Amino acid sequence: MSIDQTSIRAAHARIAGDIRRTPILRLEDGLCLKLESLQRGGSFKPRGAFNRLRQAGDLSAGVVAASGGNHGVAVALAARALGVTARIFVPQVSAAAKQAAIRAQGAELVVGGAGYADALAAAEAWQAQSGAVCVHAYDQEEVLSGQGTVALEWQEQAPELTHILVAVGGGGLIGGMAAWHAGGSTQVVAVEPHTSCALHAALAAGRPVDVPVAGIAADSLGARRVGALMFPIARAHVAASVLVEDAAIGDAQSWLWRECRMLTEPGGATAMAALLSGAWVPPPGARVGVLVCGGNATPGDVA
Amino acid sequence: MSIDQTSIRAAHARIAGDIRRTPILRLEDGLCLKLESLQRGGSFKPRGAFNRLRQAGDLSAGVVAASGGNHGVAVALAARALGVTARIFVPQVSAAAKQAAIRAQGAELVVGGAGYADALAAAEAWQAQSGAVCVHAYDQEEVLSGQGTVALEWQEQAPELTHILVAVGGGGLIGGMAAWHAGGSTQVVAVEPHTSCALHAALAAGRPVDVPVAGIAADSLGARRVGALMFPIARAHVAASVLVEDAAIGDAQSWLWRECRMLTEPGGATAMAALLSGAWVPPPGARVGVLVCGGNATPGDVA
Repeated sequence: MSIDQTSIRAAHARIAGDIRRTPILRLEDGLCLKLESLQRGGSFKPRGAFNRLRQAGDLSAGVVAASGGNHGVAVALAARALGVTARIFVPQVSAAAKQAAIRAQGAELVVGGAGYADALAAAEAWQAQSGAVCVHAYDQEEVLSGQGTVALEWQEQAPELTHILVAVGGGGLIGGMAAWHAGGSTQVVAVEPHTSCALHAALAAGRPVDVPVAGIAADSLGARRVGALMFPIARAHVAASVLVEDAAIGDAQSWLWRECRMLTEPGGATAMAALLSGAWVPPPGARVGVLVCGGNATPGDVA
Repeated sequence: MSIDQTSIRAAHARIAGDIRRTPILRLEDGLCLKLESLQRGGSFKPRGAFNRLRQAGDLSAGVVAASGGNHGVAVALAARALGVTARIFVPQVSAAAKQAAIRAQGAELVVGGAGYADALAAAEAWQAQSGAVCVHAYDQEEVLSGQGTVALEWQEQAPELTHILVAVGGGGLIGGMAAWHAGGSTQVVAVEPHTSCALHAALAAGRPVDVPVAGIAADSLGARRVGALMFPIARAHVAASVLVEDAAIGDAQSWLWRECRMLTEPGGATAMAALLSGAWVPPPGARVGVLVCGGNATPGDVA
């Protein structure tokens, strides 16, 4: 297996009946948003989850995942669609809205530990004990190829874009998207919070390294280190790595609501924050796209 | 002038640089939502406002409008884009979010009276005194042709739809949309709250009649009677008139947030309520579209 246009095309065909082709919204100034927060489960995550589970073979022992929240919603949703049980491990930082969504999909939810890494350890222990099929949140080839289908779709919808901004947590999404655009003319720009910047640190160190995780977007972007599979893709094919302040993420959430009536979670507004705050400045002539990747917010919190 | 495919095509060309081509979202079961709540100003209203003002000639005395809220946001936005002043009259029932949006566009906001009809009387008095150009919320040909561009766009995006569900207040939107589909094969279904059903009453009476106005969606759908221009169009070309309970509208708001991460105001969810509640049942083989026409909610209220 590998993660490239061939695997991403195959993934897109495989999950076509499982996911939504999320729309784009072109604004007055030409900015193109892809509204992946309107995906089933409220984030891009079902793309990878369905692509993994539809190839996993025997699912009779159930499925298991560790997640900050959104991946758990996606795996629960995919498991239900495939008629199998799911056990989802989330850390205490996981948002209440996401925990409720996981339960609403009929999955067994296990809350424990301070961060994603703790949930992952618990999930791995359960996997060893039960034989359940694990869907990793960002470090499995099927997952990366599934997330890469965002880039395939978006290029069909808006082939003119020269730069696309993508938020990064563990890197499964940008890994798949950068693999799609490898060698192409579209620049993929990575955006992370200062408070949770595993890719930025990895690129600086030349290898995935552990980083502290905190801040407003920790429940969706708070991976302690990026995946081993995504790192070589990112090093070769991510054009820039940009950091934003937590306050800029909050401002971007407000802006997306005020100007577009899109309610997003912090991680879903992080890419937009790079543009609005000036942390990333488009070069002259750029035609810019921003991925709105998650909407699993509590509406009152955004207000 | 008349309101037909010719006037609607002309409107669409005229306002192309002013409005967003709002996206559609196809759900797993084939249902097609058109997300007009993502329009500039959070509702379909700028289509009619721009189409009116771009043909109005001398705007030096400013513009004036009466509105439940959304039309006021749209006129304020259009006036600012055209570099002229706007005075917007809204009743006390108008939502705080809409009043704030009108002020944010730099318009002068006048709040007074119990309902839309009071605001209209105040606006007409101001128009007589000032010579400002009036943009009617639903009973001007330019406004109806502008709102009809929703139907033009949607048919391009989803030509397969056999039935489209549209919420009705004063009837400018459905009037324009039914004019677009006049004589065509797409059935236009009108949806109103029991608590505010000016079109349903007019169709029963054979002419526009006054109705009481109350309920959850009154600030966007609470017109006391439908427009004179829309009524003959509706009588000839609206296939069905459906009423929904206020509780069903609240349920539809919750459903749109839970399943689609679309936060809507009550009027924006009213068409969806007809489908979810069973007030309207699709005939076998129907391919159904629902217009999500407004998103100017206060996020905490929807939660």
